[in-house]
Amino acid sequence: MMRTTVTSLTQKMVVAWRKEFKRCMSSIVTRATGKDKQSSQILVSPPLVSLDFPEIWGSSSDHDNPPSGHEICGPRTAAIIDGKSIAEEIRLGIASEVRRMKEYTGRVPGLAVILVGQRRDSETYVRNKMKACEETGINSSLVELPDDCKEDEVINALSHFNEDPSVNGVLVQLPLPEHLDEEKILNVVSLEKDVDGFHPESMGNLAMRGREPLFISCTPKGCIELLIRSGVTITGKKAVVIGRSNIVGLPTSLLLQRHHATVSIVHALTKNPEQLTSEADIVVTAAGVPNLVRGYWLKPGAVVVDVGTCPVEDPTAELGYRLVGDVCFEEAVRVASAVTPVPGGVGPMTIAMLLSNTLDSAKRAYEFT
Amino acid sequence: MMRTTVTSLTQKMVVAWRKEFKRCMSSIVTRATGKDKQSSQILVSPPLVSLDFPEIWGSSSDHDNPPSGHEICGPRTAAIIDGKSIAEEIRLGIASEVRRMKEYTGRVPGLAVILVGQRRDSETYVRNKMKACEETGINSSLVELPDDCKEDEVINALSHFNEDPSVNGVLVQLPLPEHLDEEKILNVVSLEKDVDGFHPESMGNLAMRGREPLFISCTPKGCIELLIRSGVTITGKKAVVIGRSNIVGLPTSLLLQRHHATVSIVHALTKNPEQLTSEADIVVTAAGVPNLVRGYWLKPGAVVVDVGTCPVEDPTAELGYRLVGDVCFEEAVRVASAVTPVPGGVGPMTIAMLLSNTLDSAKRAYEFT
Repeated sequence: MMRTTVTSLTQKMVVAWRKEFKRCMSSIVTRATGKDKQSSQILVSPPLVSLDFPEIWGSSSDHDNPPSGHEICGPRTAAIIDGKSIAEEIRLGIASEVRRMKEYTGRVPGLAVILVGQRRDSETYVRNKMKACEETGINSSLVELPDDCKEDEVINALSHFNEDPSVNGVLVQLPLPEHLDEEKILNVVSLEKDVDGFHPESMGNLAMRGREPLFISCTPKGCIELLIRSGVTITGKKAVVIGRSNIVGLPTSLLLQRHHATVSIVHALTKNPEQLTSEADIVVTAAGVPNLVRGYWLKPGAVVVDVGTCPVEDPTAELGYRLVGDVCFEEAVRVASAVTPVPGGVGPMTIAMLLSNTLDSAKRAYEFT
Repeated sequence: MMRTTVTSLTQKMVVAWRKEFKRCMSSIVTRATGKDKQSSQILVSPPLVSLDFPEIWGSSSDHDNPPSGHEICGPRTAAIIDGKSIAEEIRLGIASEVRRMKEYTGRVPGLAVILVGQRRDSETYVRNKMKACEETGINSSLVELPDDCKEDEVINALSHFNEDPSVNGVLVQLPLPEHLDEEKILNVVSLEKDVDGFHPESMGNLAMRGREPLFISCTPKGCIELLIRSGVTITGKKAVVIGRSNIVGLPTSLLLQRHHATVSIVHALTKNPEQLTSEADIVVTAAGVPNLVRGYWLKPGAVVVDVGTCPVEDPTAELGYRLVGDVCFEEAVRVASAVTPVPGGVGPMTIAMLLSNTLDSAKRAYEFT
């Protein structure tokens, strides 16, 4: 029953995406060939922002029906990477360090969160972050602003936290309402308190060899930590990152490369994404498309980290929905050597890394080692 | 004769690299597993900078002897992408725009270059940049500092140019002598004048969707311009970038991705780099290893952009050496559909893009369109 719901939902999404995909493709071709540009221009390469548009997943491959001969029916052999218990272990370590810090310096780390609007998912994420702070002894402050607030109000709240010496980490819960300029707002976050690692200078320092950002974005850092703790060698391995968001896909690909994987980035305009994916030793997927990655997309023995969390209807669940990852879990566990579940895989690690970044920031600020 | 010299040189380099490669690999494994770290640490992931070391190309594949059955002997079918003439066309356009700017505003763009030490190659590059400025009517200033100068002297020179309103572009010729902190120095370049695009915030803005750096690094921008002007579609194509330097490989991979290619990054620790490369529709190589990319590395019909320029002994050449690319040109022209030559391919484009960035900067500063 649940299975049918998921499949039919995915099918509807795929049909909608295909239409959007065709529209986008024709628009890109026009932009890339510069047909909409003045002929007096010296260079023909288009401005980069004109190339941006939402990722619309809808390639020629069929997400629903594997090619014949690719049905997956063997035994479940993959190890399940238990993000919940690994995150718990890390949080215990953080709580212990916070106690030690308090004992020696009289101070504890502080995290400040700015939440704009009343998105239910954002409210849940923020609540979980505040709760995790409380449990580890980290101070937390929350500023909630109305959905129709002005840019200046967000920037003022940010600036206040940038100045406050008791605050070591500042984050703006994304996504912001459309009328607000995310770029302008994120640029205001002090580099020394950018515990989300979303400032472009943090991203540049993550990308560039010989440099190191003060903070690495929480989800990518959590993925790498899961891999290392699961005994997965990254150096020299082929890795595929599915999705190229600023929040997950991009920093994950940069981080895997820093760890010397050979990284390929699969996105909504990749033709035959399953072909490249099926050559990878490590697959990290953050497309936000339920069940996109089928068993036949995977190389036998691959390690699969599923960052996708998409709510799908489920009348049997307490809230009427449940979270589904990008990976068809039932198939993946029959092909891969290790898989993260959804929920209970990457999710808990993201918050643990946020706490860890906040602790690191406080240690730097208070010169406590 | 020349051929023999190149091959024997390459063989020597490969042997040396293999030794270094083994040493590096064992060092990475230690670092990645955290064996050299304190057990009290909360996270096991190592600091990123500890993962950095020079790229030592020496994979298991043999750069010199293609596997049997892979000898390339067909006719030369590839189009040769004439970077020299495309760059010349762009420079004429820039010269014309500079004249128009002078006529309307009474001002011309200004580029300032800081050269530390007396590396012969750096001196040649800088001389070529100054000459190109002169030919297009752009003002240029050069500060030459001795090899043993102090960091403060470089930073003072930079700060002076950052302040000078007649200077629209500032660049520090790389590499710097080892005693100078490249990161610290490049961070001083004003974002508004960072015509090389090497500031981490410029790199972050290039990487992040929805953003756009004020300047894109010159060589990657030149590569894309060559592709577009040669009628190559980038969107949806598989691209492989060989090399991951901050100056070429990294920004080129980010830029190709912005143009919606599916990008894989091959580096010195990639196993079987020829396998991934041979699946690519577009190959951009910037490894600095002469003749690394053999014909059998290429997919028939691929487009190949060769950024490599390595001086190799050649007694018949005027200067006793000649420049050789990463690509075995004689083989590539029999497999690819289009190839850039070395010299005369990407090289002239790099300077043209520097002029273009300087002009753009002046247009922004003087609000001239």
